[in-house]
Amino acid sequence: MPQQDASSNNPAVMAYNAVLVLFDVLVFLVKAIYIVGKGVFEMAVLPPARDVSGDIVLITGAGHGMGKNLSLQYAALGTTVVCVDVNEKTNQETVTAIKSKGGKAFGYTCDVTNRQQVVDICKKIREQVGIVSILINNAGIMPTHPLLQQTENEIRKTFDINVLAHFWFIQSLLPDMIKQNRGHIVVLSSIAGMIGFKYLVPYCGTKFAVRGIMEALSEELRADPAKPNVKFTTIYPYMVDTGLCKRPYTRFPSLLKMVKPDDAAAAIIDAQRRGLIEASIPKYLLYLNTWFRNMPLRVGQEFGDLLDTGLQSDL
Amino acid sequence: MPQQDASSNNPAVMAYNAVLVLFDVLVFLVKAIYIVGKGVFEMAVLPPARDVSGDIVLITGAGHGMGKNLSLQYAALGTTVVCVDVNEKTNQETVTAIKSKGGKAFGYTCDVTNRQQVVDICKKIREQVGIVSILINNAGIMPTHPLLQQTENEIRKTFDINVLAHFWFIQSLLPDMIKQNRGHIVVLSSIAGMIGFKYLVPYCGTKFAVRGIMEALSEELRADPAKPNVKFTTIYPYMVDTGLCKRPYTRFPSLLKMVKPDDAAAAIIDAQRRGLIEASIPKYLLYLNTWFRNMPLRVGQEFGDLLDTGLQSDL
Repeated sequence: MPQQDASSNNPAVMAYNAVLVLFDVLVFLVKAIYIVGKGVFEMAVLPPARDVSGDIVLITGAGHGMGKNLSLQYAALGTTVVCVDVNEKTNQETVTAIKSKGGKAFGYTCDVTNRQQVVDICKKIREQVGIVSILINNAGIMPTHPLLQQTENEIRKTFDINVLAHFWFIQSLLPDMIKQNRGHIVVLSSIAGMIGFKYLVPYCGTKFAVRGIMEALSEELRADPAKPNVKFTTIYPYMVDTGLCKRPYTRFPSLLKMVKPDDAAAAIIDAQRRGLIEASIPKYLLYLNTWFRNMPLRVGQEFGDLLDTGLQSDL
Repeated sequence: MPQQDASSNNPAVMAYNAVLVLFDVLVFLVKAIYIVGKGVFEMAVLPPARDVSGDIVLITGAGHGMGKNLSLQYAALGTTVVCVDVNEKTNQETVTAIKSKGGKAFGYTCDVTNRQQVVDICKKIREQVGIVSILINNAGIMPTHPLLQQTENEIRKTFDINVLAHFWFIQSLLPDMIKQNRGHIVVLSSIAGMIGFKYLVPYCGTKFAVRGIMEALSEELRADPAKPNVKFTTIYPYMVDTGLCKRPYTRFPSLLKMVKPDDAAAAIIDAQRRGLIEASIPKYLLYLNTWFRNMPLRVGQEFGDLLDTGLQSDL
């Protein structure tokens, strides 16, 4: 386009463009200072916890471990809980436990790796329960052994459950969240989604992946001119004592002890209600990791050696 | 174990343990200062580039784009190049181009998403060419549109090619690298593996995933008492002009222009030969991202808005 070339060589136009850029840079700097200030303030004074008694929360992997604790605790807050698990029996136990305490719960058996099943179940939930406003992608598996001893089936299943299932639920539930202008997607990443650990190569891949997925998706909605009010929260728990971590070890048990599933669930719900974008359990690990990422990887590795914590092979 | 409890309550044992920990912390601090100093020095004075004329490099996606450029440039350095691509014709063109310049090249047609095919091809390569000492997991696809418009098949294929294929090659080639005590695994992540971008939700997932996989795998080998001499390099290119980026845009083309495939390949080979753990193309993006990660995500997003660069939907 010769016209554009001509104008971009015009000194007046060039000066005008330079002023525009300078102005935008100044606006950015002011915004950045404000955001950092707000961030520091909110580290001390957390944003208020939203009331969730009018919400419908869908929790995957609700029959066991953290999913079960999340279900019970949300129900205690008055939230309507939709329990999803591949195991009908344990899932029903969670539903029964909630109902026995006067809570609202519905159970759906679903293999989350089967997209059609997820789509069908979500349609049924919409008709029978209502529109889900909080989705908690919690279901996950964690084969713990050297990569050379992980089978194809194991690796595929780890990605199917820990990552791809998230897409199927998001694709099924996000359109309604956007339409209602109300929604929250919570994902269980892991400390292994911030740092690479031995014997967890595919698992680390899945937990890093969900971090990228959440950031990209929130960016996608931010670019939507309608600015839909859908929030995203990524959680990085340290080892939680749910049976997933089979052979944990730690040099300083008082500093880094296994998190109790009940405490983990409480921290997750707190982060969701306050609308935090990310939170680790315990909270300081996120900041510690950010700090070490300013230095060569080797420093973090040496620090890891000092802490001497992780998992032994489960083989 | 009562005995352990008793001794851990013994003041002498407790004091001894405290001294041990203190000593380890001091050793860590000294090491950390040394590593940071070395890191700063190596930012100015890069480690020397290793000779690769005696190596056998396997490059996936060698028939096109960056894979083709990598193949041609390695061959020019005297490296024996094993070209792998699902497209027999374009793969053969790369092989022919190398041979016409007097280089050493071998072509293997392979669907990298099929584990058995990968295993079989690697066995054949071992017999017909020799033991691969450098693996470059380069093949990748990048569907670019909103998550709600990505099909199941598209998402699965993105993970199959961009992530799972890496496992199949690593599982096939790493045992020989360990046995020979010589190997290097290079992976093509992306700027989209450091930062979430709109219209690239599954792609970002795959590119974050490979980052976690590389870190976890290098940690796994570091824990091996034999300390096998296998290196890992993760590359984060900005948009490379290979046809993968269909509708790019950028506000400051002079600051962030599309990278030429030839320049990208040269940067990757340079990073591999110098044994860098990570490198972005251009180099400063990695440091810029680390810097912004110290602040709330929103600051990075505002900076992204200022730069106004990314991809439009390809639909």
